[in-house]
Formats: sequence, structure tokens, C-alpha cells
Amino acid sequence: MSQATERGENDPIRVGVLGAAGRMGAQAVRAVEAAPDLAVVAAIDAGDRLGSVAEAGAEVIVDFTHPDAVMDNLRFAVEHGIHAVVGTTGFAQERLDTLRGWLDGAPGLGVLIAPNFALGAVLSMKFAQIAARYYESVEIIELHHNRKADAPSGTAAHTARLIAAARAEAGVPPGPDATTSEVDGARGALVDEVRVHSVRLPGLVAHEEILFGADGETLTIRHDSMDRSSFMPGVLLGVRSIAGLPGLTVGLENVLAL
Amino acid sequence: MSQATERGENDPIRVGVLGAAGRMGAQAVRAVEAAPDLAVVAAIDAGDRLGSVAEAGAEVIVDFTHPDAVMDNLRFAVEHGIHAVVGTTGFAQERLDTLRGWLDGAPGLGVLIAPNFALGAVLSMKFAQIAARYYESVEIIELHHNRKADAPSGTAAHTARLIAAARAEAGVPPGPDATTSEVDGARGALVDEVRVHSVRLPGLVAHEEILFGADGETLTIRHDSMDRSSFMPGVLLGVRSIAGLPGLTVGLENVLAL
Amino acid sequence: MSQATERGENDPIRVGVLGAAGRMGAQAVRAVEAAPDLAVVAAIDAGDRLGSVAEAGAEVIVDFTHPDAVMDNLRFAVEHGIHAVVGTTGFAQERLDTLRGWLDGAPGLGVLIAPNFALGAVLSMKFAQIAARYYESVEIIELHHNRKADAPSGTAAHTARLIAAARAEAGVPPGPDATTSEVDGARGALVDEVRVHSVRLPGLVAHEEILFGADGETLTIRHDSMDRSSFMPGVLLGVRSIAGLPGLTVGLENVLAL
Amino acid sequence: MSQATERGENDPIRVGVLGAAGRMGAQAVRAVEAAPDLAVVAAIDAGDRLGSVAEAGAEVIVDFTHPDAVMDNLRFAVEHGIHAVVGTTGFAQERLDTLRGWLDGAPGLGVLIAPNFALGAVLSMKFAQIAARYYESVEIIELHHNRKADAPSGTAAHTARLIAAARAEAGVPPGPDATTSEVDGARGALVDEVRVHSVRLPGLVAHEEILFGADGETLTIRHDSMDRSSFMPGVLLGVRSIAGLPGLTVGLENVLAL
Repeated sequence: MSQATERGENDPIRVGVLGAAGRMGAQAVRAVEAAPDLAVVAAIDAGDRLGSVAEAGAEVIVDFTHPDAVMDNLRFAVEHGIHAVVGTTGFAQERLDTLRGWLDGAPGLGVLIAPNFALGAVLSMKFAQIAARYYESVEIIELHHNRKADAPSGTAAHTARLIAAARAEAGVPPGPDATTSEVDGARGALVDEVRVHSVRLPGLVAHEEILFGADGETLTIRHDSMDRSSFMPGVLLGVRSIAGLPGLTVGLENVLAL
Repeated sequence: MSQATERGENDPIRVGVLGAAGRMGAQAVRAVEAAPDLAVVAAIDAGDRLGSVAEAGAEVIVDFTHPDAVMDNLRFAVEHGIHAVVGTTGFAQERLDTLRGWLDGAPGLGVLIAPNFALGAVLSMKFAQIAARYYESVEIIELHHNRKADAPSGTAAHTARLIAAARAEAGVPPGPDATTSEVDGARGALVDEVRVHSVRLPGLVAHEEILFGADGETLTIRHDSMDRSSFMPGVLLGVRSIAGLPGLTVGLENVLAL
Repeated sequence: MSQATERGENDPIRVGVLGAAGRMGAQAVRAVEAAPDLAVVAAIDAGDRLGSVAEAGAEVIVDFTHPDAVMDNLRFAVEHGIHAVVGTTGFAQERLDTLRGWLDGAPGLGVLIAPNFALGAVLSMKFAQIAARYYESVEIIELHHNRKADAPSGTAAHTARLIAAARAEAGVPPGPDATTSEVDGARGALVDEVRVHSVRLPGLVAHEEILFGADGETLTIRHDSMDRSSFMPGVLLGVRSIAGLPGLTVGLENVLAL
Repeated sequence: MSQATERGENDPIRVGVLGAAGRMGAQAVRAVEAAPDLAVVAAIDAGDRLGSVAEAGAEVIVDFTHPDAVMDNLRFAVEHGIHAVVGTTGFAQERLDTLRGWLDGAPGLGVLIAPNFALGAVLSMKFAQIAARYYESVEIIELHHNRKADAPSGTAAHTARLIAAARAEAGVPPGPDATTSEVDGARGALVDEVRVHSVRLPGLVAHEEILFGADGETLTIRHDSMDRSSFMPGVLLGVRSIAGLPGLTVGLENVLAL
């Protein structure tokens, strides 16, 4: 049974944080505690008893644990009528299907899986999808510190795919490119027909720039991410919204009223 | 009677351009002619007979004339069942009310008044309004050539007002500002509680940057306008859409499917 | 004999423009005419007599002609004791050697060959060479309209080579790059060990950004070129300086007091 | 007697860090320890004996202490023949004069006072001074987190003054400004005739952008400072260079080979 029904109108939402000793989890604990309409009733990490979260009366769990642990945590949450806001990674299609099955048997219960809780990142992608309907030509520049192993970044590749899909849906063809002579790599990587350029320098943190161009004008959307504190407003928004979003929600963009 | 009913499915839309000898009008003539689904059937300027536009069977007029001429042109268009897409300036509330009155007697007929036809400018403002619901803190930097007389630009001031309204509607308070010691003007102008900074330099054309900030991240929306060719995609979109938008529409943003 | 000796202290410098009917030449005529300390005494194009330039008493020629014509023009100038400021392209090593030979026989006479007269471009490259001594890590992003055939741009490739040379001279190694997984092209083109990224979009003109990074900071030098009027201040600076720069000078950077 | 004479060619430079318990001092200790050609021989803070630094054979002190303590520290250093690299603030003209007097009696000894050790900040200012000779028109935008009390920032005001001085020296007048209608503050603060705009947003750290404009082009120099680790390369450069810079040196720019 969901604990939500037992809460008074002005009582804070009761939150259990899983992975509370990790970097993200610890930030989540602090952020929830700082919010007057939310309260941390349990904060556990690997080795602690999951049962303590239910015993503490948590209405929502925030999960920043590990791909190996998160499915067990979510089964527990669903069985105990606790909503979940999940930042842990590793959700391929199979896991999402499993989750949907569990939630079919728990009407009213909500689970939010979000690969990126930064509002700016989510809004950037949303804006890019909108602009892609009106501009044939678009390229992405992503800039990260030089300790990053993959290029392009997962976020930039994801953005490229969203743009390509929005463009296809609107019947907008990719813009023309007159390049006939290229030093290998100059024009970037092609991800679903969208050019992506990856800059790597010490001093950078995590930045993404989406450039649209048409005759006589350009439109640029840029997101600069300095540190993981940028995820907390999105986590809190998820915690506050999840009781009103029954079933499985993937992506913070589906929580925002866009 | 609207000419639209006489047109075959695959015939081009018949367009009359008013102010065809002006800078914008001449561009509009070229842009309409270059579009395979549109045709220029009349192109007139001050001194030419309005009647020729109706005789040529125009279904839509594009008006880039003068505040002194535009109301006569629109009355003529409404009387002859011709839709109108208007880039001429000078529409205060009184004129809009008059127009609405005329259109009440012409069901199915559409008039679009747009102060800015650049898709990028319109999308920028729309995105700014969306982001304003999630960020307390926002500032605007607009950059123009140093022959500009007013600061801030009309577009930037309009953007500031839209942001303030969106923020108010969402119940988001303006973000805190710790400034206690300021050289006069350093923190910019206040337009509806939004800070606006105006840069003026030769070499610049027309640029606007809207910066949102929250803990650990910033989100920037930037529009760079190089020349007036940027208005043409918006004009063509208006011409193609206006038959489906009966009544008075103010602002290209209401034509876009946002 | 150089005409310079016959000029009074306050007389304007007498300038002949070659290629005056071309886009750049026509701008040069206007720019020289607008400068109070300079005067156009001859403005000729293909088919006109070179002799008329000498007869008009030109002290300096400005050459924006064609690779096929420029060497004949310069031989004529050297023979008639006229300084030259040259924006025409096509100067490989052999031509420069020939020119030096001619100038050896004309002491006091100056010829300036400049592939780029935009002050901002020249200063950008100079600043990049200085910063390269202090930063291991640097990447270049160049952005141009999508009608451009080559990537990277000549200016960006040239900048990369200058940076590589400055770095080598200062004994600074290229910075580390942790990329182990790359979609082809994401990390840009390698030009002398410097990464260069080429963005192509309608609405862009010609832009170059040089990004240096070190622990905790980045330094960016950006040049935005909107149109060819940006070349004129450099041309005028060349005209005013060339009498004081005997021999062959290659590159506007050697005229600036850097 | 300077300890420098007793050191072998390949021995590390012996460094004493004062203010070692502070944020900057602690970083300095780590940075010096990480450099193979430098060694920390003493690391003290308020309450510790200054004498221990000399007894440890320090050749150079790095001082990140407090305006109240720094003059005593420097007198001690000069008396014991120890060079000094100083990041502590509070050096008005009178203190600099006193220091010069002490150093007159200590030939060969060097003291470096630097208000900003970030290479990027120092290079930005240097580049701005050079560009100011060639561009009439320049404006500064500085962007900081919204906990900052003063606007404009000290660095931006200092940059404005350096630009104004360079411009005056080159005989370049301030560029024209056509603004006739201004909402108060839109055009920024005037610092020595240079416009400075101050943006304040959470999520920002410390950023400065210097924009030069001329017909058809703009040149932008931007410095982004993410954290104080950016000061360490400048501190190390000071420590390595100070023995070769006898007397008082104010500003890291005078250590760089610019």
C-alpha cells in the first residue's frame, strides 16, 4: 500500500535515499534535507537493510546506486508501494520491460528513470528537437575535459539522434554540405546524419553547443555543466512529481511541462 | 469571395507583394518566386493600383509597405477576400482592434501581423519563456552595430517582458543578486526585473544571448542575425499557413507548431 | 626613382589601385579615397595601361588583381620606384625569391604581400603563437557558410601550423588526450598535431576560435569576419607603412608593431 | 646570503610556503611538491616560527598569507636573502615603495607581487593591450556567480584601465557610439571610457570577455576561470623565474616573455 495516502496536506514528502554514501547520493541527501517540503526518512548504502526504508515510511526512494543493485531495489519499492526516482545507469530495453510488468500490477505507483537530471541538458535537447523541425542545417560541438575516454559524449550522441528523429518526423531533409576536400576528421563524426565535433581540453568541464543555421541567421543552444550539483533541482522535481505520474516514465523531459 | 476555393490541389498559392520596390519587399518577391509551391501574381509599390492585385487573383498578400499605407491595404484585402501576411510596423492596440472588427465580417479570412519574421528570433523567445519556468536567474546580453540609437534593442526588451511574464505565471521569483557595490550601469538595465546588457561595436550585426543559471550549470540561447534574408523563411511559412489561420494572428510564434 | 621624395610633409600619399573594377579593388578605391592622408591618383583594371599609374605619380600601388597578372604589375612597380601593397594570391616560394631579386636592385623600395589583411585575423594568429608557449593543450574550431569546399579553412590550417611551430620552439609538448573510443572524425582533423574542427552552416560567414586549456581555466581567442570591408584597415595600414619597410615583407603581422 | 649559490645545477629549488594551511597555500604546497624541479622545505602558517623557513634553507618563499602579515614576512625574507613570490593582496603604492627600499639594500634578490597568477588572465590583459592599439571600439563583459558583491570585477576594471592607457599611448580615440535613447544602465559602466558589463548568475564561476570591433569584423578574447588550480602554473613559473629577476616585479605579465 502506498504511504502517500497517510500524509497530511502540509507534511513533507518522506524520502529514502539509496546509495547515500556515494557522491551523487550524498548530494541528494543534502538537497532533500534543504527542501522544506521534503524530508529524508532513510539514507542507506550497500550492506544496509532495504527493509529499513519501508519501515521508515518512505513514500519515494531516490536511487543512485549501481546497475547490479538497482533492479532489486526497484522490485522492493514496487512491492512496498513506494514511488522511485532513479539516476542509476544501465537501463537497456529488457530492464524497462521488466519494470513495466511490475508496475502493471501496482496501479498508481510511479517510477522515473532519468539518464540526466540536469534541467539545462534536458531543456537543451527539447529545444533542439523543436528547432530541428524548422532548420535543415545543424551541427553539434561538445567540449569536455581531456580525461574523457569516449568521443562524442553520450549526451551529444543522444542529442544528435533526437534531432535526426525530429527532422525525419517533420519531413525536413539534412541541409546541403559543399565540402569536397577534407583533411580526415575535420567535418566531425556523423551520428544519424548529424555532424558532431568533440573538443577535449583541461580546464573544460562538460559543455554542449547545438548550432542551427539558415540564410542570414544562426540559432545556438548551449549547456554548460560545472558540477553535479546541477542534477539536484531535477532530482527534487522528480521527487515532487512522481506521485502524479503513475507507471514508468523515462527521461526528465517527460516530467517537465514542455 | 476568397480566391482560395478556385485553386487546384497542386497549383501554387497565388501571392501579391505590396511594397515590392522596397528592400524587404524585393526580397519577398525573390523568395516567393523561388518557392515551387508559391507564385508571385502581382508586385506593386506606392503609386500602383491596389486593384491590380485582386484582378491578378492573389490569394495572399505580403505587405512590407509603410505604417501610413498598411491599413488601407488591409481593408482592401479583407474586402476582396484575400489573406494577408504583414511585416509592416506600427500596429498599436487600436489598429489591431480595427482589424479584428473587419475580420469579424469575413469568416475564414486570415491576417498575420509579425514584428519579427526570423525563425531564430521567434524560437529564441519561445525557448526563453519555457526555460523561465525552471530558472530563477536569467540575464540578457544583446549586441548590435554601433549605429543603433536605442538601448536595449526592442527585441531584447520584448524578450525580457516575455520572460518576466512566464516567470510570474509559473510562480518563480527573480533570483538573488548579492551586488552591494556597483559602478553605475555595470549591472545593466532592468526591464520588468530582468537585467539587460547592450553592447555596441562596429562589425557586429544583430545578436541576442539569453543566459539562465542555476547551481552548477548555465543554459544559453543565442540568436545571430546577419542580414534580412533571415526573414524570408518566416514570410514563406506565413504565406503557406495563413489560409488555415482564420482571424487575426499576432506574432510568428503562433504560426509555428510550438 | 621613388616618388616619395617629391611629396611635401602634409601631402596625401599618392595611391594607384590595380584591379579597381574587382570586388576587393573597388573597396580599396573607396577606402583610400575616404582616408584624409591618402589619395587615389590612378584606378585601373585588366586592359588598362600600367603606364598610366606611373604617369599619375603614384607612390604606392595596391594590387588586388589576379595571380596571372600580379608579377608583371610588380616588375613594373619596382622598375618605376613605386612601393606595393599586394592582396592578390598565388605567391609560392619561387615568386617570393624572384621578387627579392628585383628588390635587391631597388634599395629603399618596399613590397608587402599579405594573404590576409583583416587585423583581427592577424592578431588572432599572433596571440595564438604567444599563448602556445604557455599551454600544452589547444584546439581550433573554424565555422564557415556551407558553400565552402575545403575543410579545414586555409586560415585555420595556417594557425595550427603557427601554433605547432611556437610550441616546438618553446619546448612545450602537445597536451595529453585520453580518448580511447571515437566515432570516426569526432576528434577533428590533425594539422601538425593540433586538432581542428570545421563547422559548416548557412547563416555563418567566416569565424575562427582558438581554445587553450590548462588546469582550472581556458583561454579563447575568436575572430568573426562578416564581410570584406574588414580587410580595408589592414590595406590602409600597409599603404601608410610600406615606405618605411624596404625590401620584401610577407604577412601583415610584420607591419604591426607586435 | 642567498641560498641559491649553494645549490647544485640539478638540485630542486628549495621552497618555503607561508600560509600553508589556507586554501591557496595548501594548493601551492601540493603544486610545488608535484614539480620535479622544486621541493617544499618548509610549510608554515600563522603561529609558526618564520625562522624555521630560513633554517630549512629555503631559496624562495611563496606567500599566500594575509595583508596584516605579509610585510613582516617579506622583511624577514629580504634580511635572510630569500626570494619571494607573493599572492597575498593589499599592496598599495606605499607598501611597494617600502619594499623597493628594502630591496635596494639586497642586490640580486627578487620579489614578485602578482594580484593574479592565472596565465589566461594575464595573457588576456596583454592581448587586450595590443589589440587596443588597432581598434577604436572595445567593450568588456565579465560574468560571475551571483554571490559576488562588487560590479564590475576588479579584473575587468583593471583590464579597462590597461586598454584605455594603451589606446591613449597609441593615439587611438574611443570609437563612436550612436546611442541616444537608453534605459538606465543598458550600456554598462564606464571605466576610463571603456564600457564594462557585469553579468551575475548562479552556475557561473569567473569569466571575462573583451570584444573589439571594426568594420566587418570582431575580435574576442575570453578567459574562463573554473577554480583556483588555475593559479598554480603561474606560481610555479614565478618560483622558477624569480632568481633571475632582481628587484621588485609587480604583475606576472612581467615574468612571461611577452
